[in-house]
Parts: sequence; C-alpha cells; structure tokens
Amino acid sequence: MGTIKCIGILTSGGDAPGMNAAIRAVTRSAIYNGLKVKGIYRGYKGLITGEIKEFKTENVSNIIQLGGTILKTARCQEFKTPEGRQIAYETMQKEGIDALIVIGGDGSLTGARLLAQEYDVPCIGLPGTIDNDLFGTDTTIGYDTALNTILDAVDKIRDTATSHERLFFVEVMGRDAGFLALNGAIASGAEAAIIPEFNTEVDQLEEFINNGFRKSKNSSIVLVAESEITGGAMHYAERVKNEFPQYDVRVSILGHLQRGGRPTAHDRIIASRMGVASIEALMEGQRNVMIGIENDQIVYVPFTKAIKNDKPIDRELVNVLHELSI
Amino acid sequence: MGTIKCIGILTSGGDAPGMNAAIRAVTRSAIYNGLKVKGIYRGYKGLITGEIKEFKTENVSNIIQLGGTILKTARCQEFKTPEGRQIAYETMQKEGIDALIVIGGDGSLTGARLLAQEYDVPCIGLPGTIDNDLFGTDTTIGYDTALNTILDAVDKIRDTATSHERLFFVEVMGRDAGFLALNGAIASGAEAAIIPEFNTEVDQLEEFINNGFRKSKNSSIVLVAESEITGGAMHYAERVKNEFPQYDVRVSILGHLQRGGRPTAHDRIIASRMGVASIEALMEGQRNVMIGIENDQIVYVPFTKAIKNDKPIDRELVNVLHELSI
Amino acid sequence: MGTIKCIGILTSGGDAPGMNAAIRAVTRSAIYNGLKVKGIYRGYKGLITGEIKEFKTENVSNIIQLGGTILKTARCQEFKTPEGRQIAYETMQKEGIDALIVIGGDGSLTGARLLAQEYDVPCIGLPGTIDNDLFGTDTTIGYDTALNTILDAVDKIRDTATSHERLFFVEVMGRDAGFLALNGAIASGAEAAIIPEFNTEVDQLEEFINNGFRKSKNSSIVLVAESEITGGAMHYAERVKNEFPQYDVRVSILGHLQRGGRPTAHDRIIASRMGVASIEALMEGQRNVMIGIENDQIVYVPFTKAIKNDKPIDRELVNVLHELSI
Amino acid sequence: MGTIKCIGILTSGGDAPGMNAAIRAVTRSAIYNGLKVKGIYRGYKGLITGEIKEFKTENVSNIIQLGGTILKTARCQEFKTPEGRQIAYETMQKEGIDALIVIGGDGSLTGARLLAQEYDVPCIGLPGTIDNDLFGTDTTIGYDTALNTILDAVDKIRDTATSHERLFFVEVMGRDAGFLALNGAIASGAEAAIIPEFNTEVDQLEEFINNGFRKSKNSSIVLVAESEITGGAMHYAERVKNEFPQYDVRVSILGHLQRGGRPTAHDRIIASRMGVASIEALMEGQRNVMIGIENDQIVYVPFTKAIKNDKPIDRELVNVLHELSI
Repeated sequence: MGTIKCIGILTSGGDAPGMNAAIRAVTRSAIYNGLKVKGIYRGYKGLITGEIKEFKTENVSNIIQLGGTILKTARCQEFKTPEGRQIAYETMQKEGIDALIVIGGDGSLTGARLLAQEYDVPCIGLPGTIDNDLFGTDTTIGYDTALNTILDAVDKIRDTATSHERLFFVEVMGRDAGFLALNGAIASGAEAAIIPEFNTEVDQLEEFINNGFRKSKNSSIVLVAESEITGGAMHYAERVKNEFPQYDVRVSILGHLQRGGRPTAHDRIIASRMGVASIEALMEGQRNVMIGIENDQIVYVPFTKAIKNDKPIDRELVNVLHELSI
Repeated sequence: MGTIKCIGILTSGGDAPGMNAAIRAVTRSAIYNGLKVKGIYRGYKGLITGEIKEFKTENVSNIIQLGGTILKTARCQEFKTPEGRQIAYETMQKEGIDALIVIGGDGSLTGARLLAQEYDVPCIGLPGTIDNDLFGTDTTIGYDTALNTILDAVDKIRDTATSHERLFFVEVMGRDAGFLALNGAIASGAEAAIIPEFNTEVDQLEEFINNGFRKSKNSSIVLVAESEITGGAMHYAERVKNEFPQYDVRVSILGHLQRGGRPTAHDRIIASRMGVASIEALMEGQRNVMIGIENDQIVYVPFTKAIKNDKPIDRELVNVLHELSI
Repeated sequence: MGTIKCIGILTSGGDAPGMNAAIRAVTRSAIYNGLKVKGIYRGYKGLITGEIKEFKTENVSNIIQLGGTILKTARCQEFKTPEGRQIAYETMQKEGIDALIVIGGDGSLTGARLLAQEYDVPCIGLPGTIDNDLFGTDTTIGYDTALNTILDAVDKIRDTATSHERLFFVEVMGRDAGFLALNGAIASGAEAAIIPEFNTEVDQLEEFINNGFRKSKNSSIVLVAESEITGGAMHYAERVKNEFPQYDVRVSILGHLQRGGRPTAHDRIIASRMGVASIEALMEGQRNVMIGIENDQIVYVPFTKAIKNDKPIDRELVNVLHELSI
Repeated sequence: MGTIKCIGILTSGGDAPGMNAAIRAVTRSAIYNGLKVKGIYRGYKGLITGEIKEFKTENVSNIIQLGGTILKTARCQEFKTPEGRQIAYETMQKEGIDALIVIGGDGSLTGARLLAQEYDVPCIGLPGTIDNDLFGTDTTIGYDTALNTILDAVDKIRDTATSHERLFFVEVMGRDAGFLALNGAIASGAEAAIIPEFNTEVDQLEEFINNGFRKSKNSSIVLVAESEITGGAMHYAERVKNEFPQYDVRVSILGHLQRGGRPTAHDRIIASRMGVASIEALMEGQRNVMIGIENDQIVYVPFTKAIKNDKPIDRELVNVLHELSI
C-alpha cells in the first residue's frame, strides 16, 4: 500500500459522549499532518450508501462540548455480509479514502477488523462506549460521563430515598459489565451493587439485606447492572417485596439518558488524546489496532485482543464499597 | 384562641425540591418575629409518635440548597382517622404548639383542613409538590426544579435520538396534570406532549404522527404525562410499533429522579417568600389558608378552594408547542 | 405598507441564554404562518454589511438548548447615525425584508425604534437580556438562566466560605439593576445584597455588619451588583478590611460566565412564547412594540415605554432577605 | 508504640471537593476495622484548641456529595512552632488519639511530617488539593472536580466569545502548577494555555497570536494559570491590547468557585479508595506516608518525596492542544 493521503472517519454502535471530541481531534490532527479527511455518515451504512462529505477544520468547530455524534450512527446488517463489505471497499476506493478511523464499541471494531482482513485497508479503532468493556484500555470514551450522569441521578434519588426512608433499586447500563454499577455505587454512597461479574445472585441480595440495610439505616440504594445475568432491578425489587415485605421498595431504571449529555473533562481529554494518537499511529504504519490508554500512556491494542478478552473488574473496589456501606 | 407563641412545622406527601428552603424560611421568619419553632418529623406521623424537636436558626443553616426534606415525610393512615387526629391534637397541646405550618400537596392540605375543622388549630399550608396541580397559585414549590430536571434528561436523550434517528416516548410525572409534560415539551423542543387534560388519545397520536414526525425530521421526542388517562409512554410506544413499524421506537420513564435535586433559584425564592408569608399570615390572624403566588403577589387561598378546584392548563402553550414542532 | 411576506431577525447587544430559543421560535412560527425568514448576522451590522441568509425550519433545529446566539451579535456605531440607518433600510428593501424582529436589551430596542420612526418598517422587539431591566415585562429572556448560574457559583463559593469561615463579597452583573443581586442573594441564602436601587451605601454595609454577620455565624456571603452606584465588590471588601480587620475577607467577581450556558426551562419557554407572539403581533398589525409577559400573559409594550421607564424592585424581597439572614 | 485503637482525622489547607468523601471513607473504614475515630476541627488548630469530637458512622452519612469539609479547615501559625506541636501532641495524648490521618495539600503534609518526626505519632496523609501538584500520585482529591468546574465556566464563556467574536483570557487556579490550565484548555477546546512550567512568556503569547488566533477564527479562548511566573490573565490581556489593538479582548478570573461544588464521580471514588487505604496502611504498620494512586493502584509515598519533588507535566498534552487548536 502506498502513502496515506486521505482518511475516512465514522462512528458506529451506541452513541457515547465524547465521540464528537474524538471526531474533532481526528479531523484536526489529520489536517494538521497534511491529510484530507472525509466524514462518513451513519456508521458503516455510509460506506454503502456513499453518504460521505469532506471535513475541514471548521466542520468540527464548537462540537467538543456536544453529546451524541454529528456523524450519526446506525446498525448496518449489510456490512456484516462479505457483499456489503465489498461495496464498502469500492466506496472507499471511489472516494479516495486510504484508511479508516472507527469510533465505537466491540461490534464496531469487529467490523473494522473484517474489512481490514479482507481488503488491504489500514483501520484504527477508538474505544467509544459508555460501558468501559473493551480490553487493553483503562477507560473508554463516554464512560466517565455516563458515570457522572448516573451519579447525578442517584444523588437526586437519594433525596427521595432519605426523605421517605425507602429502599431503591436503581438499574444502570453496562452490557454485561459491572463498571458503571460498581463505581456508580461507590461514588454515590450506595449500599450495594449487583453486577454480572459476581453472578452469585443469592449471596449478593442476602448479604446486602443482612449487612447493608441495617436497622440503623432507614434508607438504602442498590445499583443493579442491567444484564440477563443479574436479572435487572425489577427482579430484585420483586424478591425483596416477597421476602421482606416490611421494606418500602421502589425501582428506577435510568435508561437512555445515560448515553447522552455534555462530555466531562476526562472524556474530552482522552478523546482528544486518542484522536491525535490515531493519526500518529496511521502515520507510523500501524493498522488494525485500537488506541487505548493504559497507565495514562497511549497504547496500541490489536483488534482481536481488544474484542476477545474480558476486562476484569477490580476486587479492591468491591471491598471499598463493602467497608463504606456500614 | 390566644396569641400564637409556638408553631409546629411539618412536610408531608411526596417530597419536592425547595421544601428545605421553605422549612428554613418558616423557621427563621418565625424566630425573627419572636415565635418558638418546633420541627415535626415524618409528616403527620410525627404528631402521633411525638417525634418533635425545637428548631433554632442554626438547625436550618446550609439547607437551602438541599433537595428532599430534613423533616422527612411519610404517609400516615392513622391521621386520616378522627382518633388519629385526636392524638395529634393532644400532642400539639403537650408540646405547646399553637399553630401548624404544613408543606405539601393536596393530600397534606386536606389533613390540615380536617385538623383545623375539628380542633381550634390555626393551620397554614404551603404548596409543596412538583406537579403544580394546586389551584389558586401560579406555581408550587418544586415544580420549576422538576421541569429543569426533565429538561436535562430530555436534552441528554435527544443526543441519542438525533444520533440514532429514533422516536422516543419519554414519560414524566404530573399526577393527572399535564404541566410538566407540556412545558417540558416546549422547553426541550420536543415534537409533542400527550397530557391528560386533552384525553382524546387517538387525536394526539394521529396528529403527531401525521404532522410532527415528518419525513424531513429523522428523530423525534414525545413527552407523555404518566396518568391512567394517557396510559403512559409504554402504551404509545406499543401503538406506534404496531401501527407504524417503520419507526425505531424507544421508551424512557424518568421516574423518581424528577423528585430530587438541588432546587432552582425560582423554587428557592418562592419557598422563601411563601415561608415568610406564612408567618405573616398567622400573625395577621389568617388560618386554614394555603399561601399562593398569583401574578407574582402573595395570596391566601382557602384550603377548600386550593384542593377542590382543577387548575386549568393554558391553551396558548399547546399552540406554541404545535407551531414550533414543524 | 402592504402585506408582510418576509421578516428579518437579528440579535443585538450582550448575548443572553435563550436567544437561540427565541430565534427558533420566531423562525418556525413565521414559516408556520406562511412567511419567509431571513437571518441577519451580527446585529444591526448585518443590515449594513448585508450578511443575511434565508432561514428554513432546519436552520434552527437543535439550537433551543444552546447558549449565545447563532446569529451572533455586535456593537454597531454606524447604525446609530442616520446615514447608517439609511443603508440598513436600503439593505432591507433589497433583501425584500418587510418587517424586523429584534432580540436584545434597551440599546437594541432603541435602534429598532429609530429605524421604525424614520422608515415605514414594522419592528417588534423581544426582551433579551440577563439584567431583567426592561419595563413592561415581568421577566426577560436570559434572566432566569443567569440567576441560576449565579446560584451555582455562590453554592460553590459557600462550600469554601463555610469550610474556611470567611466573609465573601460576590459581584454579579445587572447593569444598574439589582434583580440578579437581590434574587440571587435570596436564592443562595446569602446574608445581604448591595444593590444600586438603594444607594445608601453606608447603611447597607453598616446594617449588614451589625446584623447580618453576627458572632453566631462564622461565614457570610454578600452579593454586590456591579454598578458605579454600588462601587462593586472590591470597594466593599476594602472597606471591611480597613474597618473590621478581624474578618477574613475574599472577593469573587463572577464576570462573563453569567452570560452563557444552556438556558433554563423558564427561559426557553418564555423565549418560545414570545417568539410565537411576535409573529402573531406582526400579523395583527402591531408594530414598534416589545413583546412582554405580565402576569403570565403576553402583552405589547410600546418601545418608548419599555426603554424609558425604570423597572421597580419589589420591597417585599428586601424584607424576605432581611428576615432570613438572621 | 503499641496497637492503634483510636485515630484522629483532620482536613487542612485550602478546601477541595471530595474531602468529605475522604472523611466518610476514613471514618467508616476505621470503624469497620474496630478503631475509634475522632474528628478534629479546623485543621491543626483543633489539636491546639481541643475542638475534637468522636465520630460514629452516622456522623458521616449523606456527606459524600457535599463540597467543602464538614471538619472545616484553617491556617494555624502556632502549629508551625515546636511549642505549638508540643501542645498538639499533648492534646492527642489526652484524647487518646494514637494516629493521625491528615487530608490536605503539601503544607498540610509538611505539618504531619514534623509532628511525626518530633513525636512518635503515626501519620498518614491523603492528597487533598485541586491543584494536583503532589508528587507520587497521578491525581489528587478535588482535581477532577475543579477541572470540570473550569470546563463548565469556559463552556459558558465560549457562548459569549463566539457570539461576540472576542478573545478571552481566562485565569484558573493551580498554584504554580499548570495541570488545571493545560487540561482545562484541551477539554474546553481552548486555543492555548499559558502555564508556569513553560515560562518562556514571549514565545507562548507570540506563538498563540501567530498560530492560534488566525484570521479564520473569530473567537478565541486562552487559559492562563494564576502564578507569579505567568503573571496572570490580566497581564496578557494588557499586552494584547497594546500590541494587537484590533482584538476585542476580555478577561475572566474564575476565582474561588473552582474550590467548591459537588465532587465528581472520579473524586468521590479516589477519596473513598484512599480513605480505605489509609486505614489499611495504618494497620499494616505504615506511617509518615501519603496515600497515592499510580496507574490506578494504591501506593505509599513517603512524605518527604511527596512534598519535595516537582510533578512533571506531560509534554504529549502540550502537543495535543497545539494540534487541535488549528
């Protein structure tokens, strides 16, 4: 493959706060380094429909503070087929796009990996997901914002929980990863977190009821990661209602508001750093890697490693929550 | 009845942001005017259990900014019986409480009205509810904060709605009143509001689908007041899924987080003004009235009028929403 | 003058949160009613330079939540001269603009009044200023947001004031009007407000020192309206340092951040209502009036009345602050 | 020294958001591990005046979300003398305090170090400062919150900067460290940061004027770290006014509001983790170390190392800001 002259950029999968900061950083860093930039709309779908537009530095002005993604995002079944990727590749050739920057979660990186395997296209991934469930990076774009959004909501719910002396089960996102629930619980001073990594359901509820929701505490909040493994907040609320009818139980499912909002400083900074790093990586000849941040340093994580491995949750955090909920 | 020397204060019903600002204002204004103040815990329940404590000016320091209520709140079945109110009255006599300030919604004011009828106790009500459904006052303590909380949530949801080009039904509180849904829709730039005051369900959805969610708009948000009359957000989402399967529909039920949070400037100011006015009213010899604000002036609204009448919703607002959702 | 077919819209003077919501409302309401809309950039300057663009409904999508003004704003000396206004009028004729909607403070309305006087141009004003200093309307677009921004800042400053037991003088905007300072003081639980309406400087500081900052209170916050009349926060801090050296005094000048930010629900709603009302007014044949809201109803205020009269401050509020700062 | 049975806890120096989360964590973790806890008020001053109170788990309920410090903080000249520390030690003996947890910045840790040197008192420090200027830890309690507070302010100022096409110099805290200014600039999309670490004043302003504030950009924001080395925002504004009179320059000094506010998720989590770790450290026999977090792991940093070394700023960040401000 020859020199890279023009890159394409797309966002894919669920939107995450900070994606716009990443789009801005990729665009400006590319232009700074003499590359042309093309924005591809609606994720991989734009590579099939050809909805593509050249981006100048002005196109990404004043977007760093916006949630969502100005490139929009969509699911694209067609790209999952070899025929779809064939069309995508042809679009790239027609548009003169030499390399692709993909911002998204593991589904999005899988798409990039397949394209890179089948065609000689350098692809760089940026971890954009609120779930923080990509391996090889300490943090993902959107995670810190979602955590603070959860915190704001739980701080509000606590006002009511305390005033009414109730037990609240609050369901948060995470897609089979407990990062948001566990860290959200520590940050909000919740009494417990029920997370899929420790799927000993009985123990988690029993322990909480026996230890966490003591007589001296009149209100209590438990964060539950939405997941088939945990069963969700409603499931636990029902159990408590049946087994401990003396409690005044309520459920709050935070839902989609967790995905949006102005990104925090942390998410804007890592998105900016990763965006700059993605262009540097391309120019160094890197391909088929996800940009990660480990120990506050930029790292390159091969797609297969980022996608395949489960990111472990830190046991220390469980202990912290446990000691502090007395 | 003789001179009032000592007042009792309680919060009752659902908690609302600004209740603490009202507690602070009542307490300080009473002390300023030479009265003693006793805080009654857990609403009317505290009058039965005797959980009562004298309040000095320091007891209400640094609470103006807190959501919830430091006096806590609770439902109290016993107070709904004549026997319960008998005990409550005896508690007041024992504690030397000559008059009662009640902060809450219409259930709470009903309790005050009964107590005042049966015993010679001057009662003053303060409208504390996020629903804004009390007659005789333009606004209630907590309503403006809840409206802004809804706005924050819908602004976040719009990021996702726009990025994914989806149709969102967002359910908000209101207890059979559409103020939060209608004003929340105008403020957030939503495409429509479905509110119980206009219970022509078919029309509201049809009109919205035909006019609001046009081809030129790829995302859309509809606010739905939670209410048996509207059927709630889930009901409309199901209908759209069945009748218009081409739309990518999502539901978000905001739930309890609408009740909490730091009160806005507006809510703190009206709570402060109403609190001061409640003491002034007592000292003027007023009793069995709710303090209201109409046309930015303090007014006294007899309990029966505040509770019995339905507060009308302004048709102008419906037109504003309609014109702006094109 | 014949039928109005095309309106021009501009924002002028200091920017205020909610101006974009007003631009959106004017644009959509005009289009809804069959009018053409032209956006004029940089205030009156755009009428001289001809920087004007037709607005469709899409041009104002997704701006309701943004601070500032997408039309930008600027001072324009040239428009203050008859020659400048002559050019402006010619530009309007060339562009086919039949009527003008001006969003801004009293300087902006003065410009509209002059243009309307000299040429037969229907002008409607919308009160857009954080200072709330326009006569004939209870509230102006941006005031509620600025008040809440001040509140957020003072809540933060109080954390430090309380932790360190200090006396803080916090200077807020207001341009010779004390609305922000006085209401901000009530809302934030500050001990006093020094405002230009009551320019008995000595009394205000003496009274505060003698009554407000008592021995039982270890920290204290005083809001000072920036104004030549008050002399500003620094002036009072200096006086206290000299006259009462035992206090640990600090100053915070909030400055420009008071002008920006996401508008509150209240500001978005009144901006939407006023925007719709401005088109309705034009179509009814109104001209040279400012749209106001009094007692929650839309009113038309002749330009001369809105500009010339001083808006009085409610003495009740001063008493509320006084009673609650004990 | 024998077994530790009772710990004292104090906050000292400038307050920082998250100090209350740390107080809560230390208190609960100590009680969880069987220790008695005594809260010492007003920093080291409380050890001299004896203002000390036993803390139970309830004393730290519902404080995790509050800015400031419930233990208050103060400067204490007396503790800086050997005689003062003698009294402090005697107070500790009288109160039965076997070990001390100090939350604060480098002045506070210096105090702990001296006490530990002169008397056989185990001391553990927690890094509590918004400036992030302690060596041996990646982050300090309060830094992330202050960074986000700066971001909120600059986002607001940008609304005005963009609407009016101005050049703003925004002064932020940092006490001779540029972390807040540099990271704040990246996060807010500012055009430049002037920080004390790179004290080549001429270069920084020249470079910015030549590269950052180009003709294609009509507004610009520069963050300036308050510091004698940089000279502050006012200094640069004056220079620009003199040398480049064509710019419309404004200054905003954020000031004390940067110290307060609800702590972010990040600050509450690290405060909780560090608090738990401080008790664990004590029980392991550690003394005279600061708890730090490096690479997301708890580390022990000897006081002398934490205080004496300058924490370097990452050059990568300067490049990121530079590339993205085009």
